[in-house]
Amino acid sequence: MLQDVEHRALARALEIAADPAVPLGPNPRVGCVLLDPHGTVLAEGHHRGAGTAHAEADALTAARAASAPLAGATAVVTLEPCAHTGRTGPCADALIEAGVGRVVIARTDPNPVAAGGIARLRAAGLDVELAIPEDLAAAAAALNRGWEHGLAHERPLVTAKIALSLDGRAAAADGTSQWLTGAAAREEVHLLRTTCDAVLVGTGTARADHPTLTARRPDGTLHPRQPLRAVMGTSEAPPLPAIDGAGEVLPLRTRDPSVALATLFTRGVRHVLLEGGPTLAAAFLRAGCVDELIVHLAPTLLGGGRPAVADLGITTLADRLDLDLVDIAPMPTPSCPTDLRLTLRPRTA
Amino acid sequence: MLQDVEHRALARALEIAADPAVPLGPNPRVGCVLLDPHGTVLAEGHHRGAGTAHAEADALTAARAASAPLAGATAVVTLEPCAHTGRTGPCADALIEAGVGRVVIARTDPNPVAAGGIARLRAAGLDVELAIPEDLAAAAAALNRGWEHGLAHERPLVTAKIALSLDGRAAAADGTSQWLTGAAAREEVHLLRTTCDAVLVGTGTARADHPTLTARRPDGTLHPRQPLRAVMGTSEAPPLPAIDGAGEVLPLRTRDPSVALATLFTRGVRHVLLEGGPTLAAAFLRAGCVDELIVHLAPTLLGGGRPAVADLGITTLADRLDLDLVDIAPMPTPSCPTDLRLTLRPRTA
Repeated sequence: MLQDVEHRALARALEIAADPAVPLGPNPRVGCVLLDPHGTVLAEGHHRGAGTAHAEADALTAARAASAPLAGATAVVTLEPCAHTGRTGPCADALIEAGVGRVVIARTDPNPVAAGGIARLRAAGLDVELAIPEDLAAAAAALNRGWEHGLAHERPLVTAKIALSLDGRAAAADGTSQWLTGAAAREEVHLLRTTCDAVLVGTGTARADHPTLTARRPDGTLHPRQPLRAVMGTSEAPPLPAIDGAGEVLPLRTRDPSVALATLFTRGVRHVLLEGGPTLAAAFLRAGCVDELIVHLAPTLLGGGRPAVADLGITTLADRLDLDLVDIAPMPTPSCPTDLRLTLRPRTA
Repeated sequence: MLQDVEHRALARALEIAADPAVPLGPNPRVGCVLLDPHGTVLAEGHHRGAGTAHAEADALTAARAASAPLAGATAVVTLEPCAHTGRTGPCADALIEAGVGRVVIARTDPNPVAAGGIARLRAAGLDVELAIPEDLAAAAAALNRGWEHGLAHERPLVTAKIALSLDGRAAAADGTSQWLTGAAAREEVHLLRTTCDAVLVGTGTARADHPTLTARRPDGTLHPRQPLRAVMGTSEAPPLPAIDGAGEVLPLRTRDPSVALATLFTRGVRHVLLEGGPTLAAAFLRAGCVDELIVHLAPTLLGGGRPAVADLGITTLADRLDLDLVDIAPMPTPSCPTDLRLTLRPRTA
């Protein structure tokens, strides 16, 4: 059971782990808070990306710099301390050597190379707490879901985002699509972009919409973390607009989702936001390469126009592509008071 | 303020008013409960359709048959007692003459011919209570919404029901559509049919689906109240199946929604359930003849097939037909665990 101070410390560790200045990619985001035996915070630390100190080491360094007494301290960490020597030494050993007495761990390490920290801590006689309240455990899982997906599947996690009318249209007959959904939905897209390593569009969308694919705040300024901007397809498309501070542009000269994802994975991408259009969405759905679908649904009818999802090769109802709706949220704005966001996942048999 | 016993009596009056054996159509459904000054129920009554006693008269008759003392009694009614002499005398007078001291009224009568009961009761010195809790007032409004719509608009209320996939398809490319949504949604359609005077389909649907258009229980037996079965269009269609106990079949040889609705209104229909297909739904939407849209949404993708709503004559996004989502409800079944029902109304500027 977590004590109240440990609960608060873990919430804080999750918060600092999610520091928007930290790049995403092939390293997990981790936070650590050190508490003295009375529950007072001694120091905080977090990982800042490849080649920098791990969260535990960062916190221990901060504690020592403040001459904080570490004997009998509790380390509250968002991820199991590592047991391997990479660019830095094993964090489990560092905690043991510092005299830490108890370690609260929100999530075990799915990385076979780094795992083993819990066993090592317990072997050294430390008290290890793994019973985490559900909300914090879920937040710890969500923090590195792209990274975890990569370890399990050797390809990035793919979130597809589509906006559609009640009758499944992404645009009217004349191609107009701005704006089908309200400002709340559009703002959310920018937040989604900051939480993904890469945004991916097809050459068709690049030609038609000249998207900037940046993550901006409502005032137009750029978020600190910008996604890689990938454009996929074999047809010609104009270059994406060059914007100071925007993510790198990466052309992917393939129509094969698996090839595109393999290239992105090699580049360190662990979470891709697929932003359309209908052809690209259909290609990824057909290839079984969509892990999560976010639908911004405008309660409006067009009666025609461009379908939001192109041909899936389905001719009869029995071959339908079933999804499970995992969340519904209102996305209200004054002009679009009843827009919805639906979050779905392809049903696994 | 309603006393607790009056609150319970009103809930009961609403329940008996909704008696499924009572036909719908051009008469309101009304219930009445008589309470003695201590709050004990003296008698109940309800209206059973054109030519039968009004609810108040029905309750007074029952009270007299039981020799119940009516002096100082409270009458709890779902609709304002009438002040006019039609096939029966004014109910307001009957309550006054019976010695009733207080009348609780859930909804005022929007019918200019019959209204005036409240004034007459007050003029006779009776205490009239109109402050009704929101849930009961809403139930009283819902009870006769077709009838009220008819008084206000001189045409039936139209509820359109469509089933669609997440990408707006009603059927796959080969025409298969059974079953896009789960058993819960299909069962709800049967309940909807029993609450409407008429079910309306196009000749195309009649040809393609041979629908029975009956209101059935899950065990296949017929509900006590069956809707008129109207088939609209100028092309030939086979007759609907003859079924013992099913509603009358009415061919409407027109493609014009206003003409069809005028004919139905003349026949006493006050609430129409429009059950498709896409062409008929589009025709009614284009004509501004849909008051409520019920969407059974299956979280599935087809990527092609028959759109759930045909051409609306909309070519550019600015001409979109906006709706307001007024309700979302889950419609889960084991095979379709995350089906949804959305209730929408066309947005009125």
